[in-house]
Amino acid sequence: MDKKTILDYETVDIDLEKKELIIIDQTLLPGKTEIIRLGTAKQMWDAIYLLQVRGAPAIGVFAAMGLYILATQIETDNYVIFYNEFKLQRDYLDSARPTAVNLHWALNRMDRLVQSMENEPVSDILEALKNECLAIKQEDINVCKQIGEYGLSLVKPGDGILTHCNAGQLATCKYGTATAPIYLGHERGYNFRVFADETRPLLQGARLTAYELQSAGVDVTLICDNMSGMVMRNGWVQAVFVGCDRVAANGDTANKIGTSVVAAVAKRYNVPFYVCAPTSTIDMNTPNGAGIRIEQRKPEEVTDMWYKQKMAPEGVKVFNPAFDVTDNDLITAIVTEYGIARAPYTESLKEIFDRKNAK
Amino acid sequence: MDKKTILDYETVDIDLEKKELIIIDQTLLPGKTEIIRLGTAKQMWDAIYLLQVRGAPAIGVFAAMGLYILATQIETDNYVIFYNEFKLQRDYLDSARPTAVNLHWALNRMDRLVQSMENEPVSDILEALKNECLAIKQEDINVCKQIGEYGLSLVKPGDGILTHCNAGQLATCKYGTATAPIYLGHERGYNFRVFADETRPLLQGARLTAYELQSAGVDVTLICDNMSGMVMRNGWVQAVFVGCDRVAANGDTANKIGTSVVAAVAKRYNVPFYVCAPTSTIDMNTPNGAGIRIEQRKPEEVTDMWYKQKMAPEGVKVFNPAFDVTDNDLITAIVTEYGIARAPYTESLKEIFDRKNAK
Repeated sequence: MDKKTILDYETVDIDLEKKELIIIDQTLLPGKTEIIRLGTAKQMWDAIYLLQVRGAPAIGVFAAMGLYILATQIETDNYVIFYNEFKLQRDYLDSARPTAVNLHWALNRMDRLVQSMENEPVSDILEALKNECLAIKQEDINVCKQIGEYGLSLVKPGDGILTHCNAGQLATCKYGTATAPIYLGHERGYNFRVFADETRPLLQGARLTAYELQSAGVDVTLICDNMSGMVMRNGWVQAVFVGCDRVAANGDTANKIGTSVVAAVAKRYNVPFYVCAPTSTIDMNTPNGAGIRIEQRKPEEVTDMWYKQKMAPEGVKVFNPAFDVTDNDLITAIVTEYGIARAPYTESLKEIFDRKNAK
Repeated sequence: MDKKTILDYETVDIDLEKKELIIIDQTLLPGKTEIIRLGTAKQMWDAIYLLQVRGAPAIGVFAAMGLYILATQIETDNYVIFYNEFKLQRDYLDSARPTAVNLHWALNRMDRLVQSMENEPVSDILEALKNECLAIKQEDINVCKQIGEYGLSLVKPGDGILTHCNAGQLATCKYGTATAPIYLGHERGYNFRVFADETRPLLQGARLTAYELQSAGVDVTLICDNMSGMVMRNGWVQAVFVGCDRVAANGDTANKIGTSVVAAVAKRYNVPFYVCAPTSTIDMNTPNGAGIRIEQRKPEEVTDMWYKQKMAPEGVKVFNPAFDVTDNDLITAIVTEYGIARAPYTESLKEIFDRKNAK
């Protein structure tokens, strides 16, 4: 089949023979669709840091597959030597970005697996790691689909939906999280009208969300981040769906910078604000938003990147956080693959995990 | 004296001998400070439409001076012929931008003057028009200074102040409106910490506000529009000051797109939200926000302008309003040159005008 749209490409894939990761370089979208292959730890770290691969769930899958590839490069039959080296690579990948918990979660899952096989041959451990990272990817697809079903139950045909940043297929392995209800609804003729915030400074909304939704034939309108007030005041939005990078045990949510602004505006205009969260992004060990470390990035992303002329005065001070925290009272519901959690979140999120652990 | 900073240039000036308008081409800032001279109606219309001159008060002064220059080009001694031609030029300039009321207000003021001199020689009318446009400029300076004094009474030394777009000196003839309290406070050692929203899509906050405040030695930090939530949640902002393009009789305010978003966020975090409004921007003939026509601009401003690579998918639908309306209940106070108005604005704004008319 001819590759027709950006959605026909895999966001994160692995070449099991050549032992390479295969991704779309998302920094070049939408102008250029370049597929890149990565085999070294440095390439993988850079890909995460430079946002060639991004989106909390996709980063998790990427890191798991990457860690498997790096594990195959360890030349030893001795478990202690193997695990020592494995741990170094695990910690290195984990250092690429601090806010999203999935990176940490996926690497931990691989780590626990290795620790549980202490008495088995390294070749068996490698086989198990391979299956684990493939399983993480398949689970991501299932999880997104399930989030889509639950999310879809919250809206009706013809609704206007606003989303921020890209929690789309390009942030996961399929369907996306925030976009999953949109894609499932689109398949079923819901005729949503979607508004995509461009999402400064890195423009993931313009470059990725508007692009992938347009590719899928969804009715999407691109707006600047500061236009959400007007579209909601005009009554054009019936629901906001966003993704997340880490949800604390009380429901406070870290997501792309600007999410808390959309939430405050949605509250103002009585528009329900939904966070789409695979349980892998819910961090029950972080009690609330104050415990989430927010990544600060370079001023040049705001002042220079993308531009052909100087857009800010030389030497101006810049504050450039990559994420912000949305307080739980601004969140109407958190949509997971195990159901919909509502306030009080300390209880409802615990119930979600009880349901998960019971399966 | 050497020209040292951008603030040493006049935002709008007139060469009375050569009969030309002199402005800084603001579309080239901050990279390039280019002073341009305009003598034809088309050049003047374009300068307003293309935002070479922008900011409601500056546009008012510019239009008044421009209309005087165009009036001097009418070759007749006959009042009827003169007024006929004058009216055409007046209407032409008035069509350049629909939202800011100052353009209309300043042109009307010149128009009323001409109508009041029906029985006088055209040469006397021209002399009166010259004095009128110079008076409008001087009044703008006085008005901004007075707004600054009232605004300064609302904050204290060391406060964090957030502003959106550019309601600075570059939007007026001196001091600015929203920046007037900042400049006066700066002169008096208030040590404000100012946050300037970059203001997509045209980046007036980054290109103009951050630039002029930095030139003046004010402590200014540039942020993307979607970061206002985080800086307010962090407790870094004690007051928001914004300008306006038109205030309706009930206090609903049209200002740069995104203003209503800042207002909703400020409400969320209990930060007072102040609109700085010369009485020339208050339109008692427009009962509320629903009556304000919002200018829609080209999609390319969002998708292509400034960029060296493609930042949005080909052919994507874009919504690009230049302004939005902030509901009066989100506004803590409206700061005018005749005092500070608070809710209910239908009464307090009337009192402001009573005070003005009594002078």
